[in-house]
Amino acid sequence: MTLFRGLVAFPITPMNADGHVDTAALSRLVRRLVEAGVDSIGVLGSTGSYPYLSRAERRRAIEAAVAEAGGRVPVMAGIGALRTDEAVLCAQDAKAAGAGAGLLAPVSYTPLTEGEVFTHFETVAGATDLPICIYNNPGTTHFTFGDALIGRLSRLPNVGGVKNPAPETAAAAAISALRVLTPTGFSVGYSTDWNATEVLIAGGDAWYSVLAGLFPGVCKEIHSAVAQGDHAKARQRNEHLSSLWQLFRNFSSLRVIYAAANLIGICDAVPPLPIQPLAEPARRQVAETLDRLGLAT
Amino acid sequence: MTLFRGLVAFPITPMNADGHVDTAALSRLVRRLVEAGVDSIGVLGSTGSYPYLSRAERRRAIEAAVAEAGGRVPVMAGIGALRTDEAVLCAQDAKAAGAGAGLLAPVSYTPLTEGEVFTHFETVAGATDLPICIYNNPGTTHFTFGDALIGRLSRLPNVGGVKNPAPETAAAAAISALRVLTPTGFSVGYSTDWNATEVLIAGGDAWYSVLAGLFPGVCKEIHSAVAQGDHAKARQRNEHLSSLWQLFRNFSSLRVIYAAANLIGICDAVPPLPIQPLAEPARRQVAETLDRLGLAT
Repeated sequence: MTLFRGLVAFPITPMNADGHVDTAALSRLVRRLVEAGVDSIGVLGSTGSYPYLSRAERRRAIEAAVAEAGGRVPVMAGIGALRTDEAVLCAQDAKAAGAGAGLLAPVSYTPLTEGEVFTHFETVAGATDLPICIYNNPGTTHFTFGDALIGRLSRLPNVGGVKNPAPETAAAAAISALRVLTPTGFSVGYSTDWNATEVLIAGGDAWYSVLAGLFPGVCKEIHSAVAQGDHAKARQRNEHLSSLWQLFRNFSSLRVIYAAANLIGICDAVPPLPIQPLAEPARRQVAETLDRLGLAT
Repeated sequence: MTLFRGLVAFPITPMNADGHVDTAALSRLVRRLVEAGVDSIGVLGSTGSYPYLSRAERRRAIEAAVAEAGGRVPVMAGIGALRTDEAVLCAQDAKAAGAGAGLLAPVSYTPLTEGEVFTHFETVAGATDLPICIYNNPGTTHFTFGDALIGRLSRLPNVGGVKNPAPETAAAAAISALRVLTPTGFSVGYSTDWNATEVLIAGGDAWYSVLAGLFPGVCKEIHSAVAQGDHAKARQRNEHLSSLWQLFRNFSSLRVIYAAANLIGICDAVPPLPIQPLAEPARRQVAETLDRLGLAT
């Protein structure tokens, strides 16, 4: 299966101030990704603001993306929710809307124990035959998966991979530690765009990318160079993007990518309040960086 | 006004597995608090699991508590939500349901900036005349208010107080730092039961208490002793509860207080999944501790 492999691109979910999804704009974003030949499209990731959307709007977003992808590229969808019963419903909705996989984060308010997260995943996975990717994103969920817990979860029949934040260093050791604890074929993939190149070189199975959700071409260049064994080229292309990575670090990839999407004119979207769009001078920095990188159009 | 002063007791919100509030059980809890003479009742705090409840269920819970309190004790209600527009609606619902104040936490998924939190509070406060207490609870919201931000927010017309986690040490310094930055009459109050006695002795205006939501008497003893200047008695009564505070620290006050509420037979409630009830042997430790403290009935 091609799920949880290669370059997985996560677009924003354009919506109005009331959280109503602009499916036409989302379809334009998805079309761009299909045409660029990404391996999968991830809608309703953290970049897709899934926790800020109602169940009905989440379903509309998935349906629009699946329709636009038209079977050419698999669509995975965020299915996380604060309550277990709601995550079950979101998983079933995603399946019904045609998603090929679900991305499940342990969204929390009251801090969760390892046992609670295991049971949450077991319940959601058991309520659907949708292939599920463990979404480990401590920066938003405030739960950090240890390798042992990922190992236990990887034994659930339809849990097929993990999306971990890419480590700053020692990627090879991180990957082999997980390989030991997970079955053959279980996908060990990574987010955190600015560290992704080294993780791909170290053997990561997938790059879950925010930048690729808007600019798939530059990310595909890196991914393809690694796939062809041309690490020097991959590193050079990654280095070329360093000013953009710095903006991601400074202002968050979400806020930067919203600004970029508006700047290139593909949509006119703002993140859901209380999250605010980038103000000046940050927005101008994004504009200048896109210009310099030849991404502005 | 007596709002945001004295002992504020936070009961759990008993509900079924689907998140339907058991208003009869909640009313029994509220009656216990009214009879004990707490200064205010805080429904739908973190202990009241507000983010796990639908708007309709939150409203039902507030209405039941207000009806039971019958004007004898003011009721404050959690009005936090992930989206700004939803927090506005929750504030307006709370007002319409008869709450005397709203407790507003900056619930987050995408980490928020100071400016975003300020605007969120400004928007919610501006949409209601409900007196609002800033709910600073970094352990659940993952946003930490600096003193300067509390100072700015304290200038909004209807923001009347802050509920801070009680510091482990140096409570007097923490309080005076905030007094300098906030108007006269602005309430500087504290949660974190096991540190509350020292904070009251140091001059804190309110104790926002989980334990008082089920066992108001023992907390009132401490609060009254401090009010009467009998710090030795307050410290002795607090010390008497140290085994219970240790359980709060080890297993979280939420899970312990659910177990305790069931053990004394006032309700038969479980926290919302994915949060699980305390398992053995922790539950037995709670039972033994309540027994030893004479709280078991």
